[in-house]
Amino acid sequence: MRVLGIDCGTERTGYGIIDSDGRDHRLVTAGVIRGDSRLPLEERLLAIARGLREAIRAHRPDTAAVEQVFHAANSKTALKLAHVRGVALLVAAEAGLQVGEYSPLEVKTSVVGYGRADKAQVQLMTGSLLRTGDSIRSEDACDALAVAVCHATARTVSARLEVRR
Amino acid sequence: MRVLGIDCGTERTGYGIIDSDGRDHRLVTAGVIRGDSRLPLEERLLAIARGLREAIRAHRPDTAAVEQVFHAANSKTALKLAHVRGVALLVAAEAGLQVGEYSPLEVKTSVVGYGRADKAQVQLMTGSLLRTGDSIRSEDACDALAVAVCHATARTVSARLEVRR
Repeated sequence: MRVLGIDCGTERTGYGIIDSDGRDHRLVTAGVIRGDSRLPLEERLLAIARGLREAIRAHRPDTAAVEQVFHAANSKTALKLAHVRGVALLVAAEAGLQVGEYSPLEVKTSVVGYGRADKAQVQLMTGSLLRTGDSIRSEDACDALAVAVCHATARTVSARLEVRR
Repeated sequence: MRVLGIDCGTERTGYGIIDSDGRDHRLVTAGVIRGDSRLPLEERLLAIARGLREAIRAHRPDTAAVEQVFHAANSKTALKLAHVRGVALLVAAEAGLQVGEYSPLEVKTSVVGYGRADKAQVQLMTGSLLRTGDSIRSEDACDALAVAVCHATARTVSARLEVRR
């Protein structure tokens, strides 16, 4: 399956697409959509929608995944993030993609095996799983790929459990 | 000017379009986009985007306005609302509309003349300003029209102040 992972952010939205059978994962593409923080929010949302649509059009993923958003210590940041997330969910739905949602804890546990892993550990393990080493420098792209790996693994496990029932 | 007001909600998103010179306001159309709460959020966002695009396509507003979202007592509700708001801002930006943002206090003060006005008072005054009486029964459509009236008034005042400088 081909999975699109999205790491939402108002200044930088990361995306990553992988091919996966649930065990072996291969990088297809990854990148970051940058928003000019001087622009009004709607202009930034437009740039994010365009960037995600372009990635979907070019690489045709089968399914998508995003991180859940929580009321963070900074509720203003969480609210802004939710605007971007709304746009990401919309773009996925427009492309006919179902969207998996995972908590940061789930993503870290899936990728690193440890829910309190730090950013550097997630980056290291994601690079190792995708055999890209440390070539993916962007933290946002890497986080998006980690969500994609988490989703690919979860979908495969749940499909296997379905079969066994 | 023709103004689109949007009242965002995950279950019901109201919209209202008015023609206005900043003093006299005339109803063009108003309605509510209902989301099936059993559907995943992305499907509901898709329905909201489609409904808003349809209203914009049919009535060609010049500008748009939405209420600001605050971290409410229920932060989960505020976060969901922000997803819808992100979609509303995106759809407006896609149509080339600039978006005005107003706090509930501003909307109430502009329409009723009193920032702590209740829902019924806002509905009554909006109906009176648009000469629609109590024919607009939907609270969500009415709230959207109130935001539109607030935006039309604010834009006209700020244009006049510009001229006088």
